[in-house]
Amino acid sequence: MKRVCTRQFRNLTRLRSFGEVREKISRSINHVCLSRRSLHGSACRLGELELTSVRYPHVQRGKYATLTEKDVDFFQKLLPQRVLQDPSELDGYNIDWMRTVRGNSQMVLRPKTTSEVAEILKYCNERHLAVVPQGGNTGLVGGSVPVFDEIVISTQLMNQIISLDEVSGIIVCQSGCVLETLDNYLAERELMMPLDLGAKGSCHIGGNVSTNAGGLRLLRYGSLHGSVLGVEAVLASGEIVDCLSSLRKDNTGYDLKQLFIGSEGTLGMVTSVSILCPRRPKAVNVAFLGVENFEAALQTFQLCKGMLAEILSACEFMDQESMQCIQENLKLTNPIKSYPLYILIETSGSHGSHDEEKLNVFLEAAMGKGIVQDGTIAMDVTQRQNIWGLRERIAEGLLHDGYNYKYDISLPLPKLYEIVEDMRQRLGSKVTRVVSYGHLGDGNLHFNVTTPEYDKEVLGLIEPYIYEWTSQVRGSVSAEHGLGFKKRDCIRYSKEPNAVKMMVKMKKLFDPNGILNPYKTIPL
Amino acid sequence: MKRVCTRQFRNLTRLRSFGEVREKISRSINHVCLSRRSLHGSACRLGELELTSVRYPHVQRGKYATLTEKDVDFFQKLLPQRVLQDPSELDGYNIDWMRTVRGNSQMVLRPKTTSEVAEILKYCNERHLAVVPQGGNTGLVGGSVPVFDEIVISTQLMNQIISLDEVSGIIVCQSGCVLETLDNYLAERELMMPLDLGAKGSCHIGGNVSTNAGGLRLLRYGSLHGSVLGVEAVLASGEIVDCLSSLRKDNTGYDLKQLFIGSEGTLGMVTSVSILCPRRPKAVNVAFLGVENFEAALQTFQLCKGMLAEILSACEFMDQESMQCIQENLKLTNPIKSYPLYILIETSGSHGSHDEEKLNVFLEAAMGKGIVQDGTIAMDVTQRQNIWGLRERIAEGLLHDGYNYKYDISLPLPKLYEIVEDMRQRLGSKVTRVVSYGHLGDGNLHFNVTTPEYDKEVLGLIEPYIYEWTSQVRGSVSAEHGLGFKKRDCIRYSKEPNAVKMMVKMKKLFDPNGILNPYKTIPL
Repeated sequence: MKRVCTRQFRNLTRLRSFGEVREKISRSINHVCLSRRSLHGSACRLGELELTSVRYPHVQRGKYATLTEKDVDFFQKLLPQRVLQDPSELDGYNIDWMRTVRGNSQMVLRPKTTSEVAEILKYCNERHLAVVPQGGNTGLVGGSVPVFDEIVISTQLMNQIISLDEVSGIIVCQSGCVLETLDNYLAERELMMPLDLGAKGSCHIGGNVSTNAGGLRLLRYGSLHGSVLGVEAVLASGEIVDCLSSLRKDNTGYDLKQLFIGSEGTLGMVTSVSILCPRRPKAVNVAFLGVENFEAALQTFQLCKGMLAEILSACEFMDQESMQCIQENLKLTNPIKSYPLYILIETSGSHGSHDEEKLNVFLEAAMGKGIVQDGTIAMDVTQRQNIWGLRERIAEGLLHDGYNYKYDISLPLPKLYEIVEDMRQRLGSKVTRVVSYGHLGDGNLHFNVTTPEYDKEVLGLIEPYIYEWTSQVRGSVSAEHGLGFKKRDCIRYSKEPNAVKMMVKMKKLFDPNGILNPYKTIPL
Repeated sequence: MKRVCTRQFRNLTRLRSFGEVREKISRSINHVCLSRRSLHGSACRLGELELTSVRYPHVQRGKYATLTEKDVDFFQKLLPQRVLQDPSELDGYNIDWMRTVRGNSQMVLRPKTTSEVAEILKYCNERHLAVVPQGGNTGLVGGSVPVFDEIVISTQLMNQIISLDEVSGIIVCQSGCVLETLDNYLAERELMMPLDLGAKGSCHIGGNVSTNAGGLRLLRYGSLHGSVLGVEAVLASGEIVDCLSSLRKDNTGYDLKQLFIGSEGTLGMVTSVSILCPRRPKAVNVAFLGVENFEAALQTFQLCKGMLAEILSACEFMDQESMQCIQENLKLTNPIKSYPLYILIETSGSHGSHDEEKLNVFLEAAMGKGIVQDGTIAMDVTQRQNIWGLRERIAEGLLHDGYNYKYDISLPLPKLYEIVEDMRQRLGSKVTRVVSYGHLGDGNLHFNVTTPEYDKEVLGLIEPYIYEWTSQVRGSVSAEHGLGFKKRDCIRYSKEPNAVKMMVKMKKLFDPNGILNPYKTIPL
């Protein structure tokens, strides 16, 4: 047994020394967020996209007022030079980055302060004008773009860091701060943001909080419901709710900030947040492993959860079809041989040699037991980024196929890959590919199907089948992407009628005129 | 420099070998919960306690119905043998464990199932009968006992573990499970509860969730808003809201379970919970250190946060007056010399020798820098328990003085001890002692004053002064104990008027008749 381990561990060591060879992995790995970032400039050039009101004819415009010249005057006086109306500028705000929905807003407002947001909402509420709060517009369910002619309130200019307490690690900032900008700011102070996701270069922290973004390190640092310490939000009435506490513990009354975390801007617009940031790890290791089947992937997870314990910071997986997609569409290179499934394991800790020892002992055990077949460990920052790029750029790679049917579900771990195999059989050759990847540690599957163009028949084969499947095993039909516009009617697959009833009541209570992000989250 | 460190480190090593000497620390350390546990049996023997309605004459009974024979019949039929009415049995449910408030309930109901709770609430709501949900009755703000004649709904018999997924570490159980019982059950499966507190031997998990209990390891495992994955609750109307998800990620609609976490049973009664449990650490170390002043305590925290990082699981402090209290009242022994402040540091990790190395390097640095003056490290489980006992039994020790004025506040770290010194000067010889201890890592101070008997003048000197002080530095007047009955009117020291207004609206929405735990949380 020991000999086998030693031999296989040597194999890993050999792979380590192949670091240079792996340089052939495209050096030009850029984050998927780069392509998102360019949306505002490029969307209008990419041919015409059907209006949401045309593609979804069953959705009727609410009885909201329409914009008058008097309204325009009011906003121009309130926000001089910060009201956009030029059609060429509006496309980037009307269309989601995946180009699947398209609103028809005639106006984008760009406030800089909470009191400006309050003025806007007070006015809109009195006038019955519908609005949609928008951050980096990187959402995947059409939650941050208008459905009809809602006024867009962009947080682009609300990008100030208000304070940072370096001892406690608590940052307070406006909602329009870009996640990556915050993380870079914290990096200089040996701290980090407790969340990380593919769109980090464009997404706004206010959007992250409003959608309860999960991401790559939820496994280690938990959900935003735990790490967000305070929220300042503006209600539909224009009232400012200041729950911008920067205390780790505060049990005085109901924890109102939780209402704004994940409610997709339908109960209030988040204007500032206070977040608990962990210390930046001194040592980070990334391993990329190949396994023969999903059973082995689960065993790998279980083993590393026990052996890497407190230093485990990510356990991601992707299947061979994901790999093929980024190889074909983005010309990325697989650093190891082909396997049905790949696992990315990251450790983050305070002591380099301790962490390396733990990782090596784990890999030795995993290969010794025959669970992991092959693997490579990143030797430096570039290699780490390259390995992460394989996982993070799949979403970008999928777009090259044409139309992307995107699902983001939570399932009990033993069921996580069963649905993929089932679906692959069901769809057969009608589609370009069926691709799955996700957060193994969180039981969160990103399931994707692509076709050259939007195809109603294919959609009919996927939905509601996938939702029913998920519902039957008490999974979630939206693990981290939220419901937004596209999934709001699926809520009943994951939530009981009494729960939905409570949500409807809350929406009515806090936004009686329904002006805040209508047609989203709450089902028809 | 190195020599100094080595010398002082030797000093620590020497202290280690004194392990046997420290055996003189009372072997009989029992958890404070033991004394709480005996409350139900003993409260009635401890002389008469003033009724809350007498001590707080400004609080008026709401316009609720009073119990009739017909009501009693209904409940006896619904819960045969599980309706308590004998006055000798009721005291333990009417009086809080600190003996500071006393209700006058005539009836305790002990349901076993969620549907029984639903039947009870539906009936009470229709009849306008007020109720108070009660778990282990270990709260500190009078939140779990009746104020007048509310019917007590006890979770004592709702103590079933429903399921445990050992791979993901997710436990689902009824709300009446005792925290320690759950932790013991998990210990056998290499898992642990993500929270721990002095009352663990008696408190119910439903009460923990309803009060958003913090405790000793919040620093490491975060708040219940993050680790509770699902809640099943019954609304005042009797409707069951099933949000008992056991998924790490679920973004389908508003996160309703958050409403029940920390709302002290005023929005619904928690009947079952689903909780994410971390793996039980393989190695635990506890150090007890003496420092000269609060500045040094803060430096110690900052240093250990950086050097112990991912293995730091608790950083507690207590002052010399706390030590004197447990020495005098409980005959416990200080294992080190006398210092103005003591710090308890705990590490939990997966690798004993790595953890010890980190701890030793940290202690060497802390003593080398002259921050820490003296210290001892527990050598085995008993010693660990003894050291923890020093910190955990202060609350019990205080009770021996007579009356205990108890405050639980969050403050910005640099201000945490200033208030204690200020208050000590203010109260002078009018009180038996001014004692403070708490969770250094969370900025959470437990501030206590004792007098032989309840003294209105002393109370007037403490309140509202302490709340105003806290409010001025944007602290929280209740870090983890909640508001309950005793603190509900203090909410405005920590929450803005708009926030309080939102809470009042939510209470009205979910409990229009106000039958659920009246006179609590929401201010007059």
